[in-house]
Amino acid sequence: MAGSTFGKQFQITTWGESHGPALGVVVDGVPAGLSISEALIQPYLDRRKPGQSALSTPRKEDDQCEILSGVFEGKTTGTPISIMIRNTSQQSSDYSEIAGYYRPGHADYTFDQKFGFRDYRGGGRSSGRETAARVAGGAVAALFLKELGITVQAYTESIGDVKINPFHCRAEYALSSPTGMPDEEASKRAEDLIAKCKAENDSVGGVICCRASGIPAGLGEPVFDKLDANLGKAILSIGAVKAFEMGDGISAASSRGSEFNDPFCKKNGNVGKLTNHAGGVLGGISDGDDIVFRAFIKPTPSIFQTQKTVDKEGNEIDINIKGRHDPVIVPRAVVVVECMTAVTLADAVLCSLGSRMDLIRKFL
Amino acid sequence: MAGSTFGKQFQITTWGESHGPALGVVVDGVPAGLSISEALIQPYLDRRKPGQSALSTPRKEDDQCEILSGVFEGKTTGTPISIMIRNTSQQSSDYSEIAGYYRPGHADYTFDQKFGFRDYRGGGRSSGRETAARVAGGAVAALFLKELGITVQAYTESIGDVKINPFHCRAEYALSSPTGMPDEEASKRAEDLIAKCKAENDSVGGVICCRASGIPAGLGEPVFDKLDANLGKAILSIGAVKAFEMGDGISAASSRGSEFNDPFCKKNGNVGKLTNHAGGVLGGISDGDDIVFRAFIKPTPSIFQTQKTVDKEGNEIDINIKGRHDPVIVPRAVVVVECMTAVTLADAVLCSLGSRMDLIRKFL
Amino acid sequence: MAGSTFGKQFQITTWGESHGPALGVVVDGVPAGLSISEALIQPYLDRRKPGQSALSTPRKEDDQCEILSGVFEGKTTGTPISIMIRNTSQQSSDYSEIAGYYRPGHADYTFDQKFGFRDYRGGGRSSGRETAARVAGGAVAALFLKELGITVQAYTESIGDVKINPFHCRAEYALSSPTGMPDEEASKRAEDLIAKCKAENDSVGGVICCRASGIPAGLGEPVFDKLDANLGKAILSIGAVKAFEMGDGISAASSRGSEFNDPFCKKNGNVGKLTNHAGGVLGGISDGDDIVFRAFIKPTPSIFQTQKTVDKEGNEIDINIKGRHDPVIVPRAVVVVECMTAVTLADAVLCSLGSRMDLIRKFL
Amino acid sequence: MAGSTFGKQFQITTWGESHGPALGVVVDGVPAGLSISEALIQPYLDRRKPGQSALSTPRKEDDQCEILSGVFEGKTTGTPISIMIRNTSQQSSDYSEIAGYYRPGHADYTFDQKFGFRDYRGGGRSSGRETAARVAGGAVAALFLKELGITVQAYTESIGDVKINPFHCRAEYALSSPTGMPDEEASKRAEDLIAKCKAENDSVGGVICCRASGIPAGLGEPVFDKLDANLGKAILSIGAVKAFEMGDGISAASSRGSEFNDPFCKKNGNVGKLTNHAGGVLGGISDGDDIVFRAFIKPTPSIFQTQKTVDKEGNEIDINIKGRHDPVIVPRAVVVVECMTAVTLADAVLCSLGSRMDLIRKFL
Repeated sequence: MAGSTFGKQFQITTWGESHGPALGVVVDGVPAGLSISEALIQPYLDRRKPGQSALSTPRKEDDQCEILSGVFEGKTTGTPISIMIRNTSQQSSDYSEIAGYYRPGHADYTFDQKFGFRDYRGGGRSSGRETAARVAGGAVAALFLKELGITVQAYTESIGDVKINPFHCRAEYALSSPTGMPDEEASKRAEDLIAKCKAENDSVGGVICCRASGIPAGLGEPVFDKLDANLGKAILSIGAVKAFEMGDGISAASSRGSEFNDPFCKKNGNVGKLTNHAGGVLGGISDGDDIVFRAFIKPTPSIFQTQKTVDKEGNEIDINIKGRHDPVIVPRAVVVVECMTAVTLADAVLCSLGSRMDLIRKFL
Repeated sequence: MAGSTFGKQFQITTWGESHGPALGVVVDGVPAGLSISEALIQPYLDRRKPGQSALSTPRKEDDQCEILSGVFEGKTTGTPISIMIRNTSQQSSDYSEIAGYYRPGHADYTFDQKFGFRDYRGGGRSSGRETAARVAGGAVAALFLKELGITVQAYTESIGDVKINPFHCRAEYALSSPTGMPDEEASKRAEDLIAKCKAENDSVGGVICCRASGIPAGLGEPVFDKLDANLGKAILSIGAVKAFEMGDGISAASSRGSEFNDPFCKKNGNVGKLTNHAGGVLGGISDGDDIVFRAFIKPTPSIFQTQKTVDKEGNEIDINIKGRHDPVIVPRAVVVVECMTAVTLADAVLCSLGSRMDLIRKFL
Repeated sequence: MAGSTFGKQFQITTWGESHGPALGVVVDGVPAGLSISEALIQPYLDRRKPGQSALSTPRKEDDQCEILSGVFEGKTTGTPISIMIRNTSQQSSDYSEIAGYYRPGHADYTFDQKFGFRDYRGGGRSSGRETAARVAGGAVAALFLKELGITVQAYTESIGDVKINPFHCRAEYALSSPTGMPDEEASKRAEDLIAKCKAENDSVGGVICCRASGIPAGLGEPVFDKLDANLGKAILSIGAVKAFEMGDGISAASSRGSEFNDPFCKKNGNVGKLTNHAGGVLGGISDGDDIVFRAFIKPTPSIFQTQKTVDKEGNEIDINIKGRHDPVIVPRAVVVVECMTAVTLADAVLCSLGSRMDLIRKFL
Repeated sequence: MAGSTFGKQFQITTWGESHGPALGVVVDGVPAGLSISEALIQPYLDRRKPGQSALSTPRKEDDQCEILSGVFEGKTTGTPISIMIRNTSQQSSDYSEIAGYYRPGHADYTFDQKFGFRDYRGGGRSSGRETAARVAGGAVAALFLKELGITVQAYTESIGDVKINPFHCRAEYALSSPTGMPDEEASKRAEDLIAKCKAENDSVGGVICCRASGIPAGLGEPVFDKLDANLGKAILSIGAVKAFEMGDGISAASSRGSEFNDPFCKKNGNVGKLTNHAGGVLGGISDGDDIVFRAFIKPTPSIFQTQKTVDKEGNEIDINIKGRHDPVIVPRAVVVVECMTAVTLADAVLCSLGSRMDLIRKFL
């Protein structure tokens, strides 16, 4: 089935495998007249690329993006923007062994069941490398939102049992931090934890929090295309994400209504809320407050301990995975969460343009 | 924007407001030759309808479904199935007051911002009553899945701080239990908690767990249309759901890879897994194990305590909501979760039919 | 497959069979604040309904529409509008015979092949009666367009070999004319031809021309969603339509470029065209001129002469169709063509709102 | 709006401008296990590329395709197939002049109105060169269909007033013929006509007929997604196509039912039809007979005579277009028509897999 496209009006279609010649994205539905260039997109890809700190895989991927269409004299033309990233650092021989068995926590078995066989080199399409194309597309969305005064920032909230202290956080630090944490002290402890996991041939998970600001009230649709439902799909479609929480959604389940309801109030002459347990969405529609949600990320499934599994013939075997793998996915996933959020919000903005006759009459 | 349709091949389109003449669903893409009747659908609606126990609102809604198309001599014809449920118990005068202000935790404000005004009677389209149409559509999906040996069962796992004990559970009890809990003793304690909330003019949230069995490996798509991403959207689109967890997804974030990976093994001659932390999905594709996930539900926003809010003119006011409202949404939401799961799985089944040349050649 | 939905942003989903309890449409994506009522929709249905002249079937169908959702105090709310039309005049016994064989020119055989069996009563979902739901949905679209100064009018251009004389036409006459022709004299000759066909137990086809005025330049998309491509699909999806011509598209094939190109000129201070061979679309995008196209309609397949065919067992047999059938489909299809055009244009308007950054910045 | 994607299950997304670095297509939804290679796709592109005969533009475009994803060891993997074609022969300086005015018959004006400005080099996205990406995607579809015994062949039926004689046709000749005509004698006369047009600085249109064989009965959906409606959209979305005729659809409008109905009969033990006026589709669903339709193509709008138009400031001016342009589009459009047909049929095949419970039960 065709399942490589996301969004209705602002739409990304991604393609590419870990060890093919390239990966890429076609971004369709971008309004004409937005300033776009490789130089504006590259910083997003650089935040995702590996080899930037001792924490991550020693693989070096240049991840240079190339814009192939949809831009003329520095501006989007309204036609699809094709962005390609060449694969340059692949060592396919690393993977020949895994062709014959199923790695726990990976999609080897399910791909074989679904498709009859698989491109086993580096996980093929199920590789985390697939997210590079999402980031390229999301960068375009983020640039679009920025023009409208909407910003999206994600950061690491916890790795294993190390959590940030909200009173010790600086937004800028999150961008340079090796863990993606905005709290320098917590980040150092998390680095120690990751080093420990690495030494033990193990891996660890974590939580990413994302906040979008400057959101106008009225984005999202009442029933199936609720803004939080679409954000949930966007985020849960990122490889290692196993749970999604809107605002204080998990504790909501053990709360009382009198605690969880956010009272409305006057704020700078407009309607605001005294609290934001809801995470900026009521009835699936943005309420003007910050959008806040969390993504729960599983530990890297590629660990270097001996693991039990079966081979393609169904025999139970012990395996030892080789290769170059991050002991934690979280820091590199931060920008992926941001980018999928940007795509979802950009789509919601375009879809909301036709909600009211009074505005359409003015517009046309 | 058009946002009332869910699914690609097995598709439901719902319509209707709380206090209009009726609500309904058009179920499109149902294969021809499935046995369907009002008698087969009604039990699903009966599980959702209010007034069935002391716990829920005293509103009586008959929720009788009427099939208007797509069925001939007891079988689906392959054409769209239209199902209508007349509204019979509405007391619109209850709501005239709320036209002028914004109830905390409700969509009053966001609808006004998005659409310029709103049908304020009973929440209009943002009412929980909207889910009746989902249940009618989901019943068709569930009947389709049953024919293929796939079953879906949801149940209440916790209400407030009352949790079930997995060793005290009986699947059948969940169906008759007033709380939706499969553990009779926990259910009684939850009933006490709900009664206490009611007495205190308050409400409470809870957690629903859903399990689907008999799933073939290979459902879902590698990237954006991951089975868990689509399930997440389906479940997060239900009004009060604020978080979604796949398998043991929340604890994954504080786990090690060596703990969270599910080792493959031989099981009844096939490939199976020793554990199911993943919740039955690897790389977005079903692995043949049970699909397991949780929905986190917020407390009913309509509480009878005095609350702070603003009116339409922006003045800060105190309000006291009247009307007939459940102190807990969870028990009635159990069947809604089941039904949205059924729709998502039915769609995944139809979408997966074209995954492999070898099977298509046999099929045609 | 789900194939009962048309449009991306302004979207109609139809349901219903000729002899079921009802037919209907869900219109989703209609902006909030549009005046809509049953009284405003009914005239469109009345133009389609049979039994209005000696030319058409003696079946009487009331075709009273009922709005079930999406409208509050006379205005659309932005939520889906469900419209139902009860079937009241069905005589299913007329059709019991056709269950066993395949009528030439009908979908009996193809439905049996696709679905394994069929609802044979009155053609089921393949009945021309299905278009009543399109008209109800299209009426909403037409009312939306009218608010924006866009009007759509279709009329009969020819029936059999009787053609209108463009110099003898009055737009108002087309609305009351029994043939849908705007030329009274031609209409009378066409009536004679139809009467002759009826007497000979035969039927006849014709051509419908449609013109939309007040179209802003810029509707439609450059590649697959060209405005003319979407119009073509909309019109070719109407049961008996067998060809579609944009502007002077058929004669284009035997023309020279120097004849077919429409020179641009100044018109009322704006850019206009000296001719309109293109039919108002250049490169798939509206050019501000009238949209003009033609639909070629086949003769009613139900004729009362003896015809050769096969029965379900594959035996060659002679059949004589009974029942109440129009000897010509064209006059009643005029409003169906208008309505599908209106839906396509309404969708194009909503989809075009996000084409330019400069306009979006103003809008938000 | 996002409008660069065509198809529901077998889906192509194209991108690229005439004078950008490259054009391409992402083909999603292709079943796993199909043999695909650049060598298998290139012949389709070679049939479209210019400079192959004295009739066409002297521009040389290599149009070498490069597969970037979705294929492993010569077989499709079920993931999206990205195919890129580098632009190598562009002379952008040819076009600097047209930036300031609107060429008649081109999309210059409509792009400016829609997007605020345009990439004027070679028509940008509205260039006929855009169809190269369609051909690459359609080649994949054609290879898929071939595996299932379905073949698609298009050919030129007329150019200007030169028509083929059906009794003088050889299918193979169409493939090597400079005009795309299967009738060698007519082709020679058409060549003379084209040479004459060229000498007169003029251009000419024509008709392409397309026939698909080996079609199983049952493709297409009853209402909006009729097979002929989807084919119509596919073909009308090709730049210069101005009309679409299914079977004998144009003459249907002046025919009697007794002439146009195709009687069913026994054929090789199966149900067949004595004639095929319908063009292989009844009620929107394939009837097992050949699919036959025609596309009416306008003359090339770029002619070298002096033409009247307006400039961007709205002044009426005389222009003389320069550059390298085909005096007829038809011969090179033949393979484009074939390819869009192949995509539509491949999609219909995949969408039809879920039509019947009895087949699904066998399949799973």
